[in-house]
Amino acid sequence: MSEDRPHVVIVGGGFGGLAAARALRRAPVRITLVDRQNHHLFQPLLYQVATAGLNPADIAAPIRGILRRQKNALMLLADVRRVDVAARRLVLDRTELAYDHLILACGATHSYFGHDEWAEVAPGLKTITDAAEIRHRVLWAFEAAEQEDDPARRATWQTFAVVGGGPTGVELAGALAELARHTLRKDFRRFDPRASRVLLLEAGPALLPAFPEDLRDDARRRLERLGVEVRLGAAVSDITREGLRAGGEWIGARTVLWAAGVAASPLARTLDAPLDRAGRVLVRPDLSVPGHPEVRVVGDMAALEQDGKPVPGVAPAAMQMGRHAAMNVRRALRGLPPLPFRYKDKGSMATIGRAAGVADLGRLRLTGYLGWLAWLFVHLIFLIGFRSRVLVLLQWVWAYVTYERGARLITVPVEALRRGEARPEPDVPEPRPLDLPAEGSIERARTS
Amino acid sequence: MSEDRPHVVIVGGGFGGLAAARALRRAPVRITLVDRQNHHLFQPLLYQVATAGLNPADIAAPIRGILRRQKNALMLLADVRRVDVAARRLVLDRTELAYDHLILACGATHSYFGHDEWAEVAPGLKTITDAAEIRHRVLWAFEAAEQEDDPARRATWQTFAVVGGGPTGVELAGALAELARHTLRKDFRRFDPRASRVLLLEAGPALLPAFPEDLRDDARRRLERLGVEVRLGAAVSDITREGLRAGGEWIGARTVLWAAGVAASPLARTLDAPLDRAGRVLVRPDLSVPGHPEVRVVGDMAALEQDGKPVPGVAPAAMQMGRHAAMNVRRALRGLPPLPFRYKDKGSMATIGRAAGVADLGRLRLTGYLGWLAWLFVHLIFLIGFRSRVLVLLQWVWAYVTYERGARLITVPVEALRRGEARPEPDVPEPRPLDLPAEGSIERARTS
Repeated sequence: MSEDRPHVVIVGGGFGGLAAARALRRAPVRITLVDRQNHHLFQPLLYQVATAGLNPADIAAPIRGILRRQKNALMLLADVRRVDVAARRLVLDRTELAYDHLILACGATHSYFGHDEWAEVAPGLKTITDAAEIRHRVLWAFEAAEQEDDPARRATWQTFAVVGGGPTGVELAGALAELARHTLRKDFRRFDPRASRVLLLEAGPALLPAFPEDLRDDARRRLERLGVEVRLGAAVSDITREGLRAGGEWIGARTVLWAAGVAASPLARTLDAPLDRAGRVLVRPDLSVPGHPEVRVVGDMAALEQDGKPVPGVAPAAMQMGRHAAMNVRRALRGLPPLPFRYKDKGSMATIGRAAGVADLGRLRLTGYLGWLAWLFVHLIFLIGFRSRVLVLLQWVWAYVTYERGARLITVPVEALRRGEARPEPDVPEPRPLDLPAEGSIERARTS
Repeated sequence: MSEDRPHVVIVGGGFGGLAAARALRRAPVRITLVDRQNHHLFQPLLYQVATAGLNPADIAAPIRGILRRQKNALMLLADVRRVDVAARRLVLDRTELAYDHLILACGATHSYFGHDEWAEVAPGLKTITDAAEIRHRVLWAFEAAEQEDDPARRATWQTFAVVGGGPTGVELAGALAELARHTLRKDFRRFDPRASRVLLLEAGPALLPAFPEDLRDDARRRLERLGVEVRLGAAVSDITREGLRAGGEWIGARTVLWAAGVAASPLARTLDAPLDRAGRVLVRPDLSVPGHPEVRVVGDMAALEQDGKPVPGVAPAAMQMGRHAAMNVRRALRGLPPLPFRYKDKGSMATIGRAAGVADLGRLRLTGYLGWLAWLFVHLIFLIGFRSRVLVLLQWVWAYVTYERGARLITVPVEALRRGEARPEPDVPEPRPLDLPAEGSIERARTS
């Protein structure tokens, strides 16, 4: 390569990778940022895309747009297959890339705790594609309920189970309950969407385990007020297309969403470095890989303890790590030793439905409407690089006033949706006449 | 069916079908509207979704939302396989539906003039899925150009050919030219997007054949000023993944978009009625199918001559036909004979890039900025039933001021994009090192 400046390769355009790239914007280096998506994703709002409240483009910004003015950065849309730490190069899907410094910020993916066969029946929520898949399944469940004559079968279409009681699970369950109770309330004629069940299943003893106890209790009460059935100590032992077994009980549910486990990007395994049980790299205090000071790992892909507790896998931690790794690169260029990383906890928050939330900001704890406003404020502030925070805010206001969720689009053909049903074949013999309700009976059907 | 009111089945939730359903809102009938999409699509703005200017949800509104308050209407998300006119019933993908009156408004699909094998290499633009496919291909072409070292191969990635010089082709070509010249201008480091070629290929002697000659000339001049190469009399005889043959000349182009031919929905063929060459039903003057007064066909699916000219396949014509068919249903219920349909031409318009358009409004002909404002005004007015015209307007203003196209998202994995390339296998041997430009050479590469 015709170059004298050191080459810093960053893998991943999430919170950690972008923070690192930006922190190096004035450093005497060439940066190549590799991602297999062309966009940075504001993951904390992904559940809103999955429940038709926001558009993908509202929470995903093209990485090229973010780095447009950073002349020392080049972006490559490519898939990294493995890291060759000995040769200091990456093997991509079609090419190779040599580096002087490497910052890995590839994040995490779903983990089904050894049950990879659940992935197909219980999608998780990590990418725009995941969110579209969940949106299609949820909206199709209501469509299928409208077309189903058998009450028992219809009930399984109207039952939504969310596995995992962390922030994502809590937010998904709250949004689903609102979708059924409010947004879709008057959209159907042959069944009542308000009679839908939303279950939130958590294997542990509490929701939101990272939050203080009073906030956890508050969140649970608010979810139950929205109509969510919260089940604690309900470990999932089986999931099929027809439902799932949780805490020993079988629950018929056509829609199961996975918000339980995460595992680090599989790229970590190619590093030849020690990993924890979730596949994260056990980094040194300066975020480097043992034995390879030129390789640093940040964000959800890194495992680091601080004061006896793991640094949490949240966006602020990833951004802090990204900036710290960049600083250590700059120090290395000047011949200085690396500094250890320290995580500054700024608090955590979660939202429950459209106007309630919990926020743990250290000394300040907010619940209800105030918690929600804090959540909204912080999330809008951090929508950095997005085409218009004002547009997103307007959509929230609009949705708040009208209960409308404008992004209720199914963009796959009916055949594909039906295939997802995978109903046993004998059930679909000849087309049979559909028993449409008489006009007067519509209201009866809805209230019965 | 437990019902006394006549059952009106409408197939298709486009402009024609929705107009018919709304016109029957106070009629003593039960309405079932069947569509295989769950949304109404504002097709005139679909090219904006394909070129990353608007979100799908900006131009697609859930049909259930539109019909929410119309208590006599039920919506079914299903695929209609055929019409059994003798038995007065529809065969759907999973069920059957008997009707007393049928209004078919299934619109049109692409026609490749007998070359169905072109569909895979030259996608057309009719649905949200089509628009996403085109957006992915266009954005990926720029990404592939960034990764290509061979100048001749890079040139084919930077060449975009649009086949068909009607309004869709003109609008697509103009938007592509702007994307390359303005929006993406500073997004790449290894090539200059402004050097991209956009070709608009029309087999006939003029662009926009339905417009008056002075407007056609104006549109052509404006396109050429945007950098679009307009080729008239350039009939396409071959399309592959590497390019196409038009007017006898081979043009290397990795991205070919089809805006040339349309054919009526294949459902027309199951009617046992006379069809024209494009597969449209030759309806009687009252829009009914010969021999079946209870079956009416509206919109792009119907062929009707008026004063020696065909009624055009545009949204206003479809809406007028839908309302007319509904009126004839109401007349039939009262024992009155049907009335013949008359199309009222309100004019036609097309837009060329971001601030120019042509509008033929009968006596009033507008070009340039005024033509564009007329186009913008009329299209926003007719975004009926959409969650927020104000939001869409704000996005237009934002895009106008900044040249930004916020919806530049690729939501399929790199592997899928690569597969689309279908480069001959010998070309992809071992991964080879990517020759990244030295920082100083970036500007040289961009300007050379």
